Amino acid sequence: MEAMGSPANPTLKGHKLLLTQTYPPPLQWLEKTKKNYPDLEVVYHHLKSLWDYDFDLETYKDATCICTFLVMPTRQQAPKLQLIQLSSAGANHVIDTPLFKDSDVTVCTSNGIHPPQIGEWVIATFLAFQHHIPRHLDNQKEGNWVHTTATDVEDSVGLRMGILGYGAIGRQCACLASAMGMDVLAYTLRERSTAESRREKGYRVPGPKGDPEGLIPSAWFSGATKEDLNHFLAQDLDILVICLPLTPLTHHMIAAPQFEIMSKKKTFLSNIGRGPHVKTDDLIVALESGQIRGAALDVTDPEPLPKDHPLWKAPNVIITPHVAAHSRQYQTRVLDVLEMNLARLSEGKPAINKVDREVGY
Amino acid sequence: MEAMGSPANPTLKGHKLLLTQTYPPPLQWLEKTKKNYPDLEVVYHHLKSLWDYDFDLETYKDATCICTFLVMPTRQQAPKLQLIQLSSAGANHVIDTPLFKDSDVTVCTSNGIHPPQIGEWVIATFLAFQHHIPRHLDNQKEGNWVHTTATDVEDSVGLRMGILGYGAIGRQCACLASAMGMDVLAYTLRERSTAESRREKGYRVPGPKGDPEGLIPSAWFSGATKEDLNHFLAQDLDILVICLPLTPLTHHMIAAPQFEIMSKKKTFLSNIGRGPHVKTDDLIVALESGQIRGAALDVTDPEPLPKDHPLWKAPNVIITPHVAAHSRQYQTRVLDVLEMNLARLSEGKPAINKVDREVGY
Repeated sequence: MEAMGSPANPTLKGHKLLLTQTYPPPLQWLEKTKKNYPDLEVVYHHLKSLWDYDFDLETYKDATCICTFLVMPTRQQAPKLQLIQLSSAGANHVIDTPLFKDSDVTVCTSNGIHPPQIGEWVIATFLAFQHHIPRHLDNQKEGNWVHTTATDVEDSVGLRMGILGYGAIGRQCACLASAMGMDVLAYTLRERSTAESRREKGYRVPGPKGDPEGLIPSAWFSGATKEDLNHFLAQDLDILVICLPLTPLTHHMIAAPQFEIMSKKKTFLSNIGRGPHVKTDDLIVALESGQIRGAALDVTDPEPLPKDHPLWKAPNVIITPHVAAHSRQYQTRVLDVLEMNLARLSEGKPAINKVDREVGY
Repeated sequence: MEAMGSPANPTLKGHKLLLTQTYPPPLQWLEKTKKNYPDLEVVYHHLKSLWDYDFDLETYKDATCICTFLVMPTRQQAPKLQLIQLSSAGANHVIDTPLFKDSDVTVCTSNGIHPPQIGEWVIATFLAFQHHIPRHLDNQKEGNWVHTTATDVEDSVGLRMGILGYGAIGRQCACLASAMGMDVLAYTLRERSTAESRREKGYRVPGPKGDPEGLIPSAWFSGATKEDLNHFLAQDLDILVICLPLTPLTHHMIAAPQFEIMSKKKTFLSNIGRGPHVKTDDLIVALESGQIRGAALDVTDPEPLPKDHPLWKAPNVIITPHVAAHSRQYQTRVLDVLEMNLARLSEGKPAINKVDREVGY
């Protein structure tokens, strides 16, 4: 069978697409796909949950393309496999699977489908914190109309947002922050010194403005070392948004020394990456000691956060249960990315959103 | 004495500026003003509250310019008065005062200083509602990590925001909504069919992007009748933002018949204008019956909302105690507007943000 990037195959003859998901694809999508690729066999396998491994492995046998969240076959179970389309933004949950490590199957993420809802979550929780929405909700429950002074709210004009990981999500955060009058600084692993390198690659949801050309940041920072990171954190950030993939390089990257640097401006921490980016015990100390003004966490370490975990009760923290990526339009957008990759497969072009096995995202 | 728009008076000779406020102006501002206008006398009169009328009326005697929130002298008390600089966005709280009704003293609002923080409030409360932040905060209090389905959140991509009153605040809401991928429709009292008529006039806070040229709305609506309004409300709005001045025309403009129209799309209502724009009893019915999906109210009728008022407990409502305009930068921005009007007075030019006595804003 041809690998992705091979000669064209307009009808996708010989291909079988297996959708292992918790929701069936819309009939409309199936009909369009059958029309576009008459020889493509499409099979939907229903998962009871995202973690549902309990199904007949024969399902994998002839599959050339699989769309899945995290259930991965081995090479032996799926000998014809060419393309794994993940429905997640990251690939960290599959990089230890034998298929990822020991084969050259093209693995693609759904990176780019999350910016609308996650950008909204970042702004919603930051503004909720800044405008005291939790306190107002408590007062509302008691029917208390509490007069406060005009100076108790800090609006965003002139504040500075630092974005760790200036990918699709970071760009949408930047766009919203900039629209509110904030200054934006970007941090990336590799240096982005040219216009081309600052341009966004990969899938984009139509509508939200983002920053496709990378024009919003007033300055770009980069690096792989603690010194590079610490230099970035020392840029008087009012809010730091973590929207990085979880890799060995980014594991526990925000810990006591970083909170010490952030204490100068009492930087608000917003984490929508993965919980282990931040050392939880150090975060609790930073919140309790007032080193940082607050935090909004959609991800925690551990996860789920146990009922008696002290992070729940730390001051000035807003915690949501890993829901920032939720959207009624989630599946539609995953299928959009898959559709683009089917088109590229049929045209013999390289896939979009392909995971780089060296860096793990 | 010269009226505003009269010959230049570079040093503001013969002028006395009275600041009746709850906070003294920053020393820096006073020094700059004395330097710019060496002959201007500046007097600060401290108010214990915005409603503090308990002071010696002699204070007014020689004042030519007064900066105040709502405490207004009569013509007799302030015979030399030429300029009232209000620190509020609206003038509805002073239009019944004798000075406003029976004199031609120039009254200017601080319209334009509120968009940053009020735009943030509108987006914060709408996103809090859409992303279930109140529910997450309740779960956080109990230490409950509650898994939910990906489809329980509706992000803003493709939603439609209708803005009643496309002034400075409406434009900032439009800018943020548009950045999130929403379609925006504008409604104004007078028709805005030309590029010039769609352009923003008056003071703008530097930083937030807004919509100075009026380019964001995909369609403009206008009118002074219920039919005009109802036609606008029938445009499949997902959210309606009220950012109007309160005038006889806009009093109770949203009542049962309007909620009936809004029920088609279950339009979310966001009111940051004045409480009496909305008929409270009808709003409660609309919330309780599910005609509208929810509401965010910074203003209510009555205000303050009494402890036992049923609006507090209506479903899907977020109420804050008239705080959306709060900002640490509030006073600085009022003084910016005042400074611009002092400059115009000294140059013999017309004031900015001047209240039109015919329409009342």
